[in-house]
Amino acid sequence: MDFKHTYPVQLRFSDVDQLGHVNNSVYFSLYDLAKTAYMEAVQKENIDYRHTSLVVANINANFMAPVFFSDKLAIQTSTVHLGHKSFVLYQRAMNTETNEVKCECRTVMVAFDVESQQAIVIPDAWKEAIARFEGKTVEELSAD
Amino acid sequence: MDFKHTYPVQLRFSDVDQLGHVNNSVYFSLYDLAKTAYMEAVQKENIDYRHTSLVVANINANFMAPVFFSDKLAIQTSTVHLGHKSFVLYQRAMNTETNEVKCECRTVMVAFDVESQQAIVIPDAWKEAIARFEGKTVEELSAD
Amino acid sequence: MDFKHTYPVQLRFSDVDQLGHVNNSVYFSLYDLAKTAYMEAVQKENIDYRHTSLVVANINANFMAPVFFSDKLAIQTSTVHLGHKSFVLYQRAMNTETNEVKCECRTVMVAFDVESQQAIVIPDAWKEAIARFEGKTVEELSAD
Amino acid sequence: MDFKHTYPVQLRFSDVDQLGHVNNSVYFSLYDLAKTAYMEAVQKENIDYRHTSLVVANINANFMAPVFFSDKLAIQTSTVHLGHKSFVLYQRAMNTETNEVKCECRTVMVAFDVESQQAIVIPDAWKEAIARFEGKTVEELSAD
Repeated sequence: MDFKHTYPVQLRFSDVDQLGHVNNSVYFSLYDLAKTAYMEAVQKENIDYRHTSLVVANINANFMAPVFFSDKLAIQTSTVHLGHKSFVLYQRAMNTETNEVKCECRTVMVAFDVESQQAIVIPDAWKEAIARFEGKTVEELSAD
Repeated sequence: MDFKHTYPVQLRFSDVDQLGHVNNSVYFSLYDLAKTAYMEAVQKENIDYRHTSLVVANINANFMAPVFFSDKLAIQTSTVHLGHKSFVLYQRAMNTETNEVKCECRTVMVAFDVESQQAIVIPDAWKEAIARFEGKTVEELSAD
Repeated sequence: MDFKHTYPVQLRFSDVDQLGHVNNSVYFSLYDLAKTAYMEAVQKENIDYRHTSLVVANINANFMAPVFFSDKLAIQTSTVHLGHKSFVLYQRAMNTETNEVKCECRTVMVAFDVESQQAIVIPDAWKEAIARFEGKTVEELSAD
Repeated sequence: MDFKHTYPVQLRFSDVDQLGHVNNSVYFSLYDLAKTAYMEAVQKENIDYRHTSLVVANINANFMAPVFFSDKLAIQTSTVHLGHKSFVLYQRAMNTETNEVKCECRTVMVAFDVESQQAIVIPDAWKEAIARFEGKTVEELSAD
């Protein structure tokens, strides 16, 4: 798997639970943080977010190994599918010292009109910016 | 869907993000809280947790509607499948005033030997306690 | 000390740190939650929050004993001083089963004009509503 | 004020509340994180933490300006007083691009024997390591 976006994340003492493991719910804060950074990296390619926002429709995560406070952790993010009104992100939490993948997550994001509060078709400019960032064509990313 | 376990949860001001919605990552803290209470309810039926623990292997959540700070929220929890080394919980976050389902989540839990730190076969006593709590037989819950 | 407002709070598994104690930072989320409920209880007495908001200027907390996940915890809240542009809340986190006080906190709150984003004199109607709730006079609460 | 320890901290989307400000309770997670890093920096000077731990006895924080998600934030940490059984940290949250101080906090830390769970006299080796790190003498840091 080839990722164009790797984002180091900082763990907090309060992220760690009684068992010494970073709590499951924290992973989603970290995925969120990386998602924001990923979108900003794509946004540099001229996406207009003022009228169109994004909401999470589905999260599917596999927890492979516990994360410890001492782990150097990074989140890798990639768009793996462009749909009509939604697109799919694939993210991984990995220890950057050992390359161990701790967790992987697929997230379905839905484009959303801020004014009408309705799901909308993903603007072509977005699809193109995402595809360009991923080094693929819109067609490749739209195939099932 | 029939739930034997409904757990009211308290929202915090800090759970709400810039958009006025309870942040996605908070849902998993709330599911966790309800899971703990569910297990305690089952545990009353004489499950021994001293040697055997539980870890989350997979989370799959559908976000149907935003949760607001003012929502009266409860988490419903049910075991929907008993496997060999794992079992599957189905949970829902619902507004108890409107009965609107805000989010649903399937979680695969793996039984875990505390000493060897290895996944183990779910003890029969657990399966029976869970089945009893759900008002079903172990066979019914083990079927695909 | 006599409190007119006691608010039970729900602990989450993720609130507990590696030492088995509820993390210090969590207390402030719980004080915040109780503060919101306290203000709503006072607000029923006709305070208008649309133009005037509240910000925290100072927090001073004494940690007397650790809080555990199994503790039944409530936050007690009282206004102990009404100033010109600020007022002072005194809050305690206590175990409602043992009456042990786990933490006490004084918070200086500043009234704030939403439009100009400036600190403002606390409206007389607020002072009166707070004093009425506390069963005291504005003069008593304004004395040094 | 001269700080020997400045620690950049990463903000998360979930740290930001409905008003667009980083929630007050988050500051204490960030101070904690910087405290851990500060202690590790001092620990390199051979402090033994196995038998002696640290607990927070008092927090006193002034909130000067709101923190926004886009702020580049760092926590500065310094020991300003060495007592008999306790010592005092002074920390600041500052925007590293504008040098604006957002919040300052004094924390009283108490030395704690892990086995007996009692407050203990701070070991001389600790006092010396802290003083060395701060570029002062133990006597200077112990004066009132």
